[in-house]
Amino acid sequence: MFIGFSEAETFLRNCEDAVIITHQNPDGDCIGAGFGLKDILDSLGKRSRVVCSDEFPKRYDFLTNTGCGEDFEPKSIIAVDVADTKLMGKYKEIYGDKVQLCIDHHISNKDYAQQTLLRGNATAACEVIYDLALYMKLQISRHCAMCLYTGIATDSGCFKYDCTTPRAHEIAAEMMKRFDINFARINRYMFDVKSVGRIRLETKVNALMESYLDGKLTIAAVTQDMMKEMGVSIDELEGFAPLTIQLEDTEVGILLRQREDGVFKCSFRSANDVNVSEICQTLGGGGHAKAAGCTVSGTLDEAKQLLVETVRKALG
Amino acid sequence: MFIGFSEAETFLRNCEDAVIITHQNPDGDCIGAGFGLKDILDSLGKRSRVVCSDEFPKRYDFLTNTGCGEDFEPKSIIAVDVADTKLMGKYKEIYGDKVQLCIDHHISNKDYAQQTLLRGNATAACEVIYDLALYMKLQISRHCAMCLYTGIATDSGCFKYDCTTPRAHEIAAEMMKRFDINFARINRYMFDVKSVGRIRLETKVNALMESYLDGKLTIAAVTQDMMKEMGVSIDELEGFAPLTIQLEDTEVGILLRQREDGVFKCSFRSANDVNVSEICQTLGGGGHAKAAGCTVSGTLDEAKQLLVETVRKALG
Repeated sequence: MFIGFSEAETFLRNCEDAVIITHQNPDGDCIGAGFGLKDILDSLGKRSRVVCSDEFPKRYDFLTNTGCGEDFEPKSIIAVDVADTKLMGKYKEIYGDKVQLCIDHHISNKDYAQQTLLRGNATAACEVIYDLALYMKLQISRHCAMCLYTGIATDSGCFKYDCTTPRAHEIAAEMMKRFDINFARINRYMFDVKSVGRIRLETKVNALMESYLDGKLTIAAVTQDMMKEMGVSIDELEGFAPLTIQLEDTEVGILLRQREDGVFKCSFRSANDVNVSEICQTLGGGGHAKAAGCTVSGTLDEAKQLLVETVRKALG
Repeated sequence: MFIGFSEAETFLRNCEDAVIITHQNPDGDCIGAGFGLKDILDSLGKRSRVVCSDEFPKRYDFLTNTGCGEDFEPKSIIAVDVADTKLMGKYKEIYGDKVQLCIDHHISNKDYAQQTLLRGNATAACEVIYDLALYMKLQISRHCAMCLYTGIATDSGCFKYDCTTPRAHEIAAEMMKRFDINFARINRYMFDVKSVGRIRLETKVNALMESYLDGKLTIAAVTQDMMKEMGVSIDELEGFAPLTIQLEDTEVGILLRQREDGVFKCSFRSANDVNVSEICQTLGGGGHAKAAGCTVSGTLDEAKQLLVETVRKALG
């Protein structure tokens, strides 16, 4: 059931020994929302614990170093930034059908919780939590502000993408005025810092880019043989799809990664207005308008040919 | 003489046939400020013309395509985002000592104009112009909003750097609410789009990076021989210095480019709190705390050794 701020406030003020579930493959928004909400519950004198099916990446240490919370038998079950119980990973089985409050911003939220505070037009779950704290007239801590800023910044691509709301900017302005958070340092670690290995792989993926359809389509394909030569796994090439839309004329970019069974995982990105979710749906996949995916079988040449033809039709 | 909004309003309401001077090597802020101010003068029924010592780069076509303005003998001389007349290039000789109004945000502004509206704490000259338009109770156009957004976004690194003010975020929020500007598309072209040549050169510069002082210093050096091999000029390697602070542990990054006379141009960047302007001053150069430069003579090895020793001392 979808609820408003008032019911969410009532829940938080009455909850006890809460577990806060974040999604698998954790990102800045679910980590910021989880640890930000934990701070808020701390300030209300409630015990809470943040859990995640995967380890929190090291670069979020500045948020997670306050600790995930004590071990206790939870009485209240909360999920943040989790649109679907299947994104809970190993926690789906334990808590999937017991979530009492979900705070989210994904329009695709499955309404699996007893109560869901959903703002489908918000940039980030952290934006919803900030406004909830404001509604509850709570003084958030500096650490909580850092958590919520990080979530808003990461989900908006540092205010770059069209999911950025005016409210996201307003909250950033309020936080900069009220808290001495080193936002530039946060942004450096979230957006600019790269490992030597990352730079090396970007170079390799850049070298593989091929242009089709007068430059409107860019494809970079990495086969199992290439991965062996580079000394990387298919997972290590996660997150390189945005490189395929760097070139000015590109409207659609596709990163192909061959699985061990020979099938190609295809990660689509849209530079502007082309809806790649619709394109992927015609190939049995799906996703968002600007980021979607599908799988394609066959040889590399067959896969490329199918993708080029499918995108050609979509571009009209 | 430094003035406030009231005197700036009086000047703009009384000016006639104005030339608006932007700085050489034009960037998003001076272009946005120049064309944004031209829009404002248009709305006041004043003729104006935007001039620049260099051509406006093609990627700003979406701002400059309204035209620089008619050719006329100017009666009013305005400079925007120009801290020093020497930055006017060829226009210094014509207008350098005749500027009546300067609108700027550089704390280093030389106060060369008859009247200077300086907000040294503003993110961008465009932030000052937006607030001036608000003070004057003017309705700005959508094109003007695009100009001013672009200036604020580019000078703040899309709200990433510590020069970003709360006001910059507030203005972005106001613009998103009031105007249907495609800010995501602007940001894509300003921050994400790269040419094939740019990607190729980034790859080369990345391959040249060397770590010193336990990784706290990164140096990338490009000699004349290397440039000949790469087929690029020293100018084409402008703007690659930020690559030197990509690595996590790096505090100081230096890009060395050898001039034809053998001397090395050194572009310093600071990742966090080290003041590279102070370091460059000890070598006869200067600049800003986070971006500065100097020149160093000698062989490549001698230059590197001098830089490593100088940075070692500065890091303490």
